[in-house]
Amino acid sequence: MKVIPLGERLLIKPIKEEKRTEGGIVLPDTAKEKPMKAEVIEIGKDVEDIDIKVGDKVIFSKYAGTEIKIDDEDYILIDQDDILAKVEE
Amino acid sequence: MKVIPLGERLLIKPIKEEKRTEGGIVLPDTAKEKPMKAEVIEIGKDVEDIDIKVGDKVIFSKYAGTEIKIDDEDYILIDQDDILAKVEE
Amino acid sequence: MKVIPLGERLLIKPIKEEKRTEGGIVLPDTAKEKPMKAEVIEIGKDVEDIDIKVGDKVIFSKYAGTEIKIDDEDYILIDQDDILAKVEE
Amino acid sequence: MKVIPLGERLLIKPIKEEKRTEGGIVLPDTAKEKPMKAEVIEIGKDVEDIDIKVGDKVIFSKYAGTEIKIDDEDYILIDQDDILAKVEE
Amino acid sequence: MKVIPLGERLLIKPIKEEKRTEGGIVLPDTAKEKPMKAEVIEIGKDVEDIDIKVGDKVIFSKYAGTEIKIDDEDYILIDQDDILAKVEE
Amino acid sequence: MKVIPLGERLLIKPIKEEKRTEGGIVLPDTAKEKPMKAEVIEIGKDVEDIDIKVGDKVIFSKYAGTEIKIDDEDYILIDQDDILAKVEE
Amino acid sequence: MKVIPLGERLLIKPIKEEKRTEGGIVLPDTAKEKPMKAEVIEIGKDVEDIDIKVGDKVIFSKYAGTEIKIDDEDYILIDQDDILAKVEE
Repeated sequence: MKVIPLGERLLIKPIKEEKRTEGGIVLPDTAKEKPMKAEVIEIGKDVEDIDIKVGDKVIFSKYAGTEIKIDDEDYILIDQDDILAKVEE
Repeated sequence: MKVIPLGERLLIKPIKEEKRTEGGIVLPDTAKEKPMKAEVIEIGKDVEDIDIKVGDKVIFSKYAGTEIKIDDEDYILIDQDDILAKVEE
Repeated sequence: MKVIPLGERLLIKPIKEEKRTEGGIVLPDTAKEKPMKAEVIEIGKDVEDIDIKVGDKVIFSKYAGTEIKIDDEDYILIDQDDILAKVEE
Repeated sequence: MKVIPLGERLLIKPIKEEKRTEGGIVLPDTAKEKPMKAEVIEIGKDVEDIDIKVGDKVIFSKYAGTEIKIDDEDYILIDQDDILAKVEE
Repeated sequence: MKVIPLGERLLIKPIKEEKRTEGGIVLPDTAKEKPMKAEVIEIGKDVEDIDIKVGDKVIFSKYAGTEIKIDDEDYILIDQDDILAKVEE
Repeated sequence: MKVIPLGERLLIKPIKEEKRTEGGIVLPDTAKEKPMKAEVIEIGKDVEDIDIKVGDKVIFSKYAGTEIKIDDEDYILIDQDDILAKVEE
Repeated sequence: MKVIPLGERLLIKPIKEEKRTEGGIVLPDTAKEKPMKAEVIEIGKDVEDIDIKVGDKVIFSKYAGTEIKIDDEDYILIDQDDILAKVEE
């Protein structure tokens, strides 16, 4: 199944980072904060304001966008204005 | 009865997907989350911002649009801005 | 008494449809949902965005418009933007 | 005392209609709904969007405008956008 | 002390009218409604939308503007859009 | 430390006026109302709508602006639109 | 890891100032007010309204922006409109 974002939207895939408590315990997913880093999967054809390409890592606005499930994986459909920054590692 | 959406609206028909609980029980309709996938049925004549045709599958914004019943089936009248993505399977 | 809607407004007359419960009992008016289908009675002179004429049946946005009584019958003064669709039967 | 509405405002005088309960009792003023019919008294010089003249009867938006008292009579200063319709009897 | 309103603002001085209860008792100030009539004291240089000059009596929007005290007298700094009408006596 | 307001903002310094209760007691600072008079300290380079220069006394909108401390003194960074009037004494 | 702010955003690093209570006790971080001074780290390519360069100290609007962690240090992604002033020491 392919999801093509419309207008000024992008399809991004949140990157979950392992997080350990101070005591070194790895927390299960639900106990972590909502991730804010994502990989860009698809770009709507009207996305012109930001300089982003498929595969880029981005930081996105925490409560923005609409969560969807594709083949049991979590994705987010998000407006270009809610992509805050590009990350280079 | 034919419903012709006005202006920048579309008439879409939500697609209900069967959903099983982890124990394998098929949940009745009311226990499922509101569907977010729909088929495009009719397109208003001022819909110009998105590249969508009748029969396309789309993902729509969860709380957007107005639910109506046509011949006892559920449909949604929705603004083009609330169609988030096109789905190709 | 004639009511002429001003600007981009229309005067519409809600169509009440009989509704039976599953057991076949006809519900009195107050127990029904607010009707969303109406007949167009008068059209304000600045209504230009939608292709509607007097006598057309329309679907309107549930909580929009202002209810008025003319000769003890219920009517609604409503903005053209709140007319969602035209109905052909 | 003469009140000249400024800009796109009009001065209107609500018309109170007698209303009887089903049992035939005439209700005193405070028990009635706020009147929505009014006579146009004065028209501000920037009122151009609507075709209204002094003496016309109009229907106005229920919670719009500012109530004022002139010589112990109730009037309303109201924006032209809140005049919904003209009434001809 | 002279107060010169900036932009599209005016300085007005509310006119308190004596008000008697039905039994004829003169109410002290705090028991009265907030006055809505005022005299225009100063006019900001960008006030162009309304035809008002210093000394005019006006009716203003009840909850608009900012109350200030000058030499222990109450004044209001108010936007020209919140002056509803001119009063001629 | 010098604070240069950006865009259409000004840096102002509230003027605290002594206030006596009716019984003649001088109230300490916390019991007074928030001051609304201020001296203009710095003017952002895009302040063009109002005719104000450094050293002017102004009246500002009570809940507007952002309070900051410079060398233990209170200042306010405020938008030009929230400066209501100029005061000449 | 390098974070490049998009559009009209900047990446800033809050400057925490030591704060002593009146009794001279140094308060730990959580007991202090949120800092409002920051150093500019990166500037988005559409930041044109304000005259700011990397390394400048700025005052920012207290509740604006999105906090992120880079290599365990706190940063803020913030819109240029929420940078209130430049600080020169």
